Amino acid sequence: MARDPKYDILFDPIQIGPKVSRNRFFQTSHCAGPGSERPGTQAHFRAMKAEGGWGVVFTEYCSIHPEADEYPYTSARLWDEGDVINLRYMCDMAHRHDSLVGVQLWYSGIHAPCLESREVGRAPTGLVSNMFPSRTVYGSEMDHDDIKAVINMYVLAAKRAEQAGFDLLEVSGGDSTVPIQFLEPRYNHRTDKYGGSLENRARFYIELMTALKRELGHSCAITTRFEVDTLHGPDGGIEAKEDGVRFMELMHREGVCDLWSVKIGDYEEWGEDAGVSRYRKSGWMTPFVKDAKSVVEGVPVVANGRFTSPDDMVAIIRGGVADIIGAARPSIADPFLPNKISEGRLEDIRECIGCNMCVSKFNQVGQLQCTQNQTAMEEYRRGWHPEKFEPARDPCSVLVVGAGPAGLECARVLGERGYTVHLREAEAELGGHWRWVSKLPRLNEWSRVITYREIQLRKMKNVEIHLGVGKMSAQDILEYGADRVVVATGSHWRTDGVGPEGHRPIPGADTSLPHVFTPEQIVAGKPLVGKRVLVMDAEGHFLGITLTEMMADLGMQVTYVTNLSEIADYGQFTLEVQNNKRMLNEKGIPTIRNHWIDRIEPGKVTLGYMYRHGPDLAGPTTGAVPRRLNPGTMEVEADSVILLTSRISEDALYRELKQRKAEWEPNGIEAVYRIGDCKAPMQALQAMFEGHRLAREFDGPHPEYPLPWIRERQVWGHDTFPKLGDPRPKVEVD
Amino acid sequence: MARDPKYDILFDPIQIGPKVSRNRFFQTSHCAGPGSERPGTQAHFRAMKAEGGWGVVFTEYCSIHPEADEYPYTSARLWDEGDVINLRYMCDMAHRHDSLVGVQLWYSGIHAPCLESREVGRAPTGLVSNMFPSRTVYGSEMDHDDIKAVINMYVLAAKRAEQAGFDLLEVSGGDSTVPIQFLEPRYNHRTDKYGGSLENRARFYIELMTALKRELGHSCAITTRFEVDTLHGPDGGIEAKEDGVRFMELMHREGVCDLWSVKIGDYEEWGEDAGVSRYRKSGWMTPFVKDAKSVVEGVPVVANGRFTSPDDMVAIIRGGVADIIGAARPSIADPFLPNKISEGRLEDIRECIGCNMCVSKFNQVGQLQCTQNQTAMEEYRRGWHPEKFEPARDPCSVLVVGAGPAGLECARVLGERGYTVHLREAEAELGGHWRWVSKLPRLNEWSRVITYREIQLRKMKNVEIHLGVGKMSAQDILEYGADRVVVATGSHWRTDGVGPEGHRPIPGADTSLPHVFTPEQIVAGKPLVGKRVLVMDAEGHFLGITLTEMMADLGMQVTYVTNLSEIADYGQFTLEVQNNKRMLNEKGIPTIRNHWIDRIEPGKVTLGYMYRHGPDLAGPTTGAVPRRLNPGTMEVEADSVILLTSRISEDALYRELKQRKAEWEPNGIEAVYRIGDCKAPMQALQAMFEGHRLAREFDGPHPEYPLPWIRERQVWGHDTFPKLGDPRPKVEVD
Repeated sequence: MARDPKYDILFDPIQIGPKVSRNRFFQTSHCAGPGSERPGTQAHFRAMKAEGGWGVVFTEYCSIHPEADEYPYTSARLWDEGDVINLRYMCDMAHRHDSLVGVQLWYSGIHAPCLESREVGRAPTGLVSNMFPSRTVYGSEMDHDDIKAVINMYVLAAKRAEQAGFDLLEVSGGDSTVPIQFLEPRYNHRTDKYGGSLENRARFYIELMTALKRELGHSCAITTRFEVDTLHGPDGGIEAKEDGVRFMELMHREGVCDLWSVKIGDYEEWGEDAGVSRYRKSGWMTPFVKDAKSVVEGVPVVANGRFTSPDDMVAIIRGGVADIIGAARPSIADPFLPNKISEGRLEDIRECIGCNMCVSKFNQVGQLQCTQNQTAMEEYRRGWHPEKFEPARDPCSVLVVGAGPAGLECARVLGERGYTVHLREAEAELGGHWRWVSKLPRLNEWSRVITYREIQLRKMKNVEIHLGVGKMSAQDILEYGADRVVVATGSHWRTDGVGPEGHRPIPGADTSLPHVFTPEQIVAGKPLVGKRVLVMDAEGHFLGITLTEMMADLGMQVTYVTNLSEIADYGQFTLEVQNNKRMLNEKGIPTIRNHWIDRIEPGKVTLGYMYRHGPDLAGPTTGAVPRRLNPGTMEVEADSVILLTSRISEDALYRELKQRKAEWEPNGIEAVYRIGDCKAPMQALQAMFEGHRLAREFDGPHPEYPLPWIRERQVWGHDTFPKLGDPRPKVEVD
Repeated sequence: MARDPKYDILFDPIQIGPKVSRNRFFQTSHCAGPGSERPGTQAHFRAMKAEGGWGVVFTEYCSIHPEADEYPYTSARLWDEGDVINLRYMCDMAHRHDSLVGVQLWYSGIHAPCLESREVGRAPTGLVSNMFPSRTVYGSEMDHDDIKAVINMYVLAAKRAEQAGFDLLEVSGGDSTVPIQFLEPRYNHRTDKYGGSLENRARFYIELMTALKRELGHSCAITTRFEVDTLHGPDGGIEAKEDGVRFMELMHREGVCDLWSVKIGDYEEWGEDAGVSRYRKSGWMTPFVKDAKSVVEGVPVVANGRFTSPDDMVAIIRGGVADIIGAARPSIADPFLPNKISEGRLEDIRECIGCNMCVSKFNQVGQLQCTQNQTAMEEYRRGWHPEKFEPARDPCSVLVVGAGPAGLECARVLGERGYTVHLREAEAELGGHWRWVSKLPRLNEWSRVITYREIQLRKMKNVEIHLGVGKMSAQDILEYGADRVVVATGSHWRTDGVGPEGHRPIPGADTSLPHVFTPEQIVAGKPLVGKRVLVMDAEGHFLGITLTEMMADLGMQVTYVTNLSEIADYGQFTLEVQNNKRMLNEKGIPTIRNHWIDRIEPGKVTLGYMYRHGPDLAGPTTGAVPRRLNPGTMEVEADSVILLTSRISEDALYRELKQRKAEWEPNGIEAVYRIGDCKAPMQALQAMFEGHRLAREFDGPHPEYPLPWIRERQVWGHDTFPKLGDPRPKVEVD
């Protein structure tokens, strides 16, 4: 199909310093996990976006020196020749697709954990980091020699970046890195020419950009990612209406910045930049970016905002908000988003749902994963391409039982590969539990998981969807006539209170009683008893807090209880925890942490503190915990109790089929597999991964077992970088 | 010196299956961070212990299959040929010192996060993991085919271990791995022959050991690490007085276990195995181990218990508690502990202080570090040996100013290298702040940091210690006559309340007032006002909770307040958090989390909830936080307020010296360096690392800057393991 001409503006080339981007799609620097340590994963992940049409692709944050060592978190690094070799491969691969490649130069000042380098970051003032609470991370206050040395570190790293082939050298002046630490009164208590007035606080940042422009501006674009508003108000940092925009004017006057990539929210408020769809709708940063753009005439501005709609993107450019569409998460969910717009295939765009599972894996010190794109980070290690599928060697017929996330994704990939697929769903709609989940408050964008897959499946002539067929029995399946069977029957919430604390049923926890509820019963409309609701959330992800808010919005007096130390604990990883707490406080919802339910009675729940036994240990004893039992129970008046203690697989069908294995061959069945929650309850992105992987590897003799993947790590006997005795790259200016 | 004959028993060889250990020192499997991913670091770290006299050295926990993928945490792995290559290097290096090498075979069942492999662990019952709360980790319930396959995984991994050169194959049946998951009713809800009675619950574990004995028992010792008591009492798991010891009898009867390494506390209660000295004194597990030993006549038993005294070790063996002394942390703090006992050099033993900083770094997904041994994990990447020091190229004179942890360690290493060192301390005793820290309740073992270094320094003829000399001025130092100067003047707690929240002074926070205190003032005896004490702990490590307990023990009504989400947050990493909470609850100390101090007045502290602003975001505004301000303040009656908001460097001396750089040469001073807290406040182990590193690298032109170290990671262009297209190692039994 041809491109709608109204989108042509998105494909206009644009000058960025000495470089030209072929279009307006800009993959903003974003964390992923490979850094400079897994060069194949890094290169293939980023180059896939170049192939998919992103005019500019970036690394994640890239440490310029061991003093800015983010370990245990994985940044890219430009410390030595090994990093140049590893990142050069990324540049080379992306250049094959005519994209520009950028690196975000990062020096974290007071926020450098340095667990690998064991060095200490230098900073405007010697303060404690608020980013790594309890880890005792401080910066060392810079004198003027230090300032010169740190600027020199940037220049030296930038030269290594140029050697590696990078086109854009972006200084991070967001996420509370050292340029903005100088700018923020919060972090800058100096009284010399680098502290006090805005001009003084801006001096470091401008000197740094000037040095980079002078040393590398002829060959590379010198750009910055700038936090125009820290969102902390006048006492806490930079406001867009004050110092943020005024600083941009100052810098702009110097002519040393070739592009402004604008964000809001500091390192603490990372969740305001990478806003989840539960709290931030696409484009939420627009008013801030517009202010910023107004003062940097002639220099391109990049706006992020989880844009997935080309109409929204056009509006941003036509409305004078920005010149370039930045994206991190939308480029993960669909590396081919630009090409799909260009080819008029809007319905094929796999839109980001704003769930932040991607960053949640990075924040666990893992590699990125994506709910929408199961091939993310698998491009190299498993050789997967998001848009290309190997044709089935033996295109047999496959029955997929259950159209939740796992079944949908499995059917989609099997379909792409040319298998004859029957996807059968007991209920009248596609989606399994995701159907009701994405109807809950704040979660409507999550329905894109289903709609994308439904659209794709409906296009395939080799796929039939059968809805509302009711639960299939093992006998139904044996007689169905498919060559192979994939069971994807999901899971449900436990009805008896079994959960992580003791893995025992809770006395009085029986959801056949009128006052005890599973989440499914709430959604299905089982009537609440009374006004006082207690939510027991042992899962700590999105569902407990969502149901809690829903209860409050229904006018209930709701109490949120968790065994964990943090409310909706997984929000620490998805960057939601702050806004979740703000929401609970704003709605006046009391929370109780580190408690488990001892007993449920009508109108009353007895909670036990999880640490009520004493710290001292007696010797081995029989029939008793070898600790003193202290007081630590409390009663909460509650008419209705919603239990999120744990889930249990719907695996009876699979188990029966397996027991009747002798009947497979007589019925023409070659194999029966299971995927997703019916194997073990899991996050939806993992269930979809299972469906995807099975379909990708469906040809081998035992596709139920994953094939090996490439592990990137040191192998003994290979060269290392550096070697012992290598000289230190000198950074100080004598 | 000769060995005291009373310790000879520790050096008796002992048979372990088909192998013989040359002595009774057994480095128990312990986490460190290198795994199979950093082969050089792994090999040199473990082989150093072999060199130092440990008859047996082990890997950390070693995953047998991608279904037991611990990533993001780093286990060793025996998945493929790359792992065999990498771990073979460790075996070869340790064998050069005639030690046996062991590997702990680990399959985590329901507790497998699998963030790299994206597989799912199999388990006796499909339950949620209580180890990775909120990450949605469940196991998949095994059928009998699965049981055979998992046993086969162990066998295949064990064969790879044998190829790599391991002598001891230890099955982890502790830390809630799958053998003990079968054994514990908590995790085993089965009704088949693998569930129900003890005999049934023991079946998997015994079948597994039998298979290993059959397949590999001729060439390797088949051993196990067993959790004889989970400490959860009758409902929660295994008790030493019941199923724990009875299971050992059952297994022992089969003759399939060549050695029992006994521990207590399950994966959740890891802190009871790796007990901190704050809660557990050396040998705390002895009553449990003794019960265990009583039922396995003829098979050696290993007892751990943070033993550092050879007399205690002898008592364990002579008392019939165990045959072998296991150690993890004492072997980290001093890899040469056995040799020092053997050589009659007891005073040179660098005793573990039980601070758990080692595991705290692993738990941050980093590499181990040690407060006592700064060379730990630096053996390979920096080429450091804990007991050998390169002689100074130019043995000049060095003045070290300040004898806190950093100065002590720097002076020690400079002394070992042959420099002429004057270590000058303002106070009358060595140790700096560590002196008063180690006098606080529960922290007395921490004084070993000072005593070890004092003993070493006192032995060196080239080191002079000058105590009680008062604060040196810059002029004093310029005139002192040393060739080089190391400033190690430490830090102190802020007196104005500046801390991570906003980095602003707190209104009313002024420790010159009678009712506001720094920790130093408390220790120095500034009189408390009234009975009601509020401790504001923004550091979240050991000091806030220690002062809190001390106040309670003094009879005060104390309230513990923190801005963090967890009380003494760093205790999550050191495994102290559970017992800290138990202690607070037992002593009735109320805690308030996520609050910061708005204002201190006599008798009253106003606290503000950190999330009192709403979740919704307004556009850019001037002079205001762009969020709604909700209620969220509370008043606490408090007569005395102790502030742990942040620390500040004592760097005035260093800064003056630096400003007077022109006077160095005329005064014969070549260089002035600073280390430790006076550069930036840091953990004591980091301050000591700084002192150690400076002294190790003191010869170069700029020793203030660290030399590069070897980074172990994939370099593009090198081979990988596996490669794409490699076949899957088949585990299922057809």
